[in-house]
Amino acid sequence: MPRTQGSERSPRRADARRNIEAILGAARQCLSRDPDASVGDIATAAGVGRVTLYGHFGSRAELVDATVTEALNAFDTDLEAVDLTGDPSEALVRLVNATWQRTAESALLVVAAERALPPDRLLAAHQRPMKRIAEFFEHGQAQQAFRSDLPASWLVSVFHSIVHAAANEISAGRMDSRDAGEAIATTLLAAVQAPTGGSSK
Amino acid sequence: MPRTQGSERSPRRADARRNIEAILGAARQCLSRDPDASVGDIATAAGVGRVTLYGHFGSRAELVDATVTEALNAFDTDLEAVDLTGDPSEALVRLVNATWQRTAESALLVVAAERALPPDRLLAAHQRPMKRIAEFFEHGQAQQAFRSDLPASWLVSVFHSIVHAAANEISAGRMDSRDAGEAIATTLLAAVQAPTGGSSK
Repeated sequence: MPRTQGSERSPRRADARRNIEAILGAARQCLSRDPDASVGDIATAAGVGRVTLYGHFGSRAELVDATVTEALNAFDTDLEAVDLTGDPSEALVRLVNATWQRTAESALLVVAAERALPPDRLLAAHQRPMKRIAEFFEHGQAQQAFRSDLPASWLVSVFHSIVHAAANEISAGRMDSRDAGEAIATTLLAAVQAPTGGSSK
Repeated sequence: MPRTQGSERSPRRADARRNIEAILGAARQCLSRDPDASVGDIATAAGVGRVTLYGHFGSRAELVDATVTEALNAFDTDLEAVDLTGDPSEALVRLVNATWQRTAESALLVVAAERALPPDRLLAAHQRPMKRIAEFFEHGQAQQAFRSDLPASWLVSVFHSIVHAAANEISAGRMDSRDAGEAIATTLLAAVQAPTGGSSK
């Protein structure tokens, strides 16, 4: 039987796509529960055999890489939908509310990525959403809403680390996930807003 | 020849102690440069054979665990020497200045620990210094110097994550290590100080 690699409509192609989607979905679920989940666990959860999985992803690291990349693309899509115009402090609250939950859900996926991928790779995968957030903080500095005595790159890093800190607090049972959005927004606003008149030394 | 296990002054004991110290020192240096440094690399740097190393540490994970525990004990000793009395905001600046550098130096050691140890173990090793810092933030809240609308455990987490964020920024080349102390202190003060009159919404 001839291979019909050229046709997008080929049933073989459609099967492959469905398998890849099932594998990535299963990888995301499994790794978010157990960052050391094995390829075997993920194949079982996806309802495919290990041979099929390895036909699409050459190694566990390649699969973790694809899963993290997909999660960060979804994060970037969320980000794109947030209205970052208008008052920067109000926009920051919208930004936090629209994104912290996905980050919290991905806390163990981040651990999986840190264990399986070189740090450069993880950084590269974050590039696109981080650039968007950097532009937002630069804009807020230009509007004098956010402090300018510290570089925008540092404000981005503070944003990133505070959101991840909340994810850790939730998974350690020290914070209720219902309180996280407000704790993150309150802390970030205090940290990045331009100091007013006599508020601090 | 009879083993002289009972005597602290036995040359065999002294040799073992010296070897353990050399191995832990080498592990710290090697893992701080390369979080995936092998047991072989560490034995070579310590000037001992692999058999000797495995005589003291049963596995790579056990060696990483001992290295991290030693680093955190040193951190706790630094912490104990900081004067945390008086004005809590001024004490926070002293706390940052006395501790951030050691944390930054340990950035890759943290990566090594995250890769080699279960998260619970890493958390347990942080327990003692984190308890000390928690008491400091609780005291600052009681003095009304630090905000009380967020739990002290969250302020500790913010402290921890901001210091680690600076370590990441330095290792990514986005922050000069000479600027880190001030960036950390400024950001933390803004984040944790009790809001004054009209400083935020």
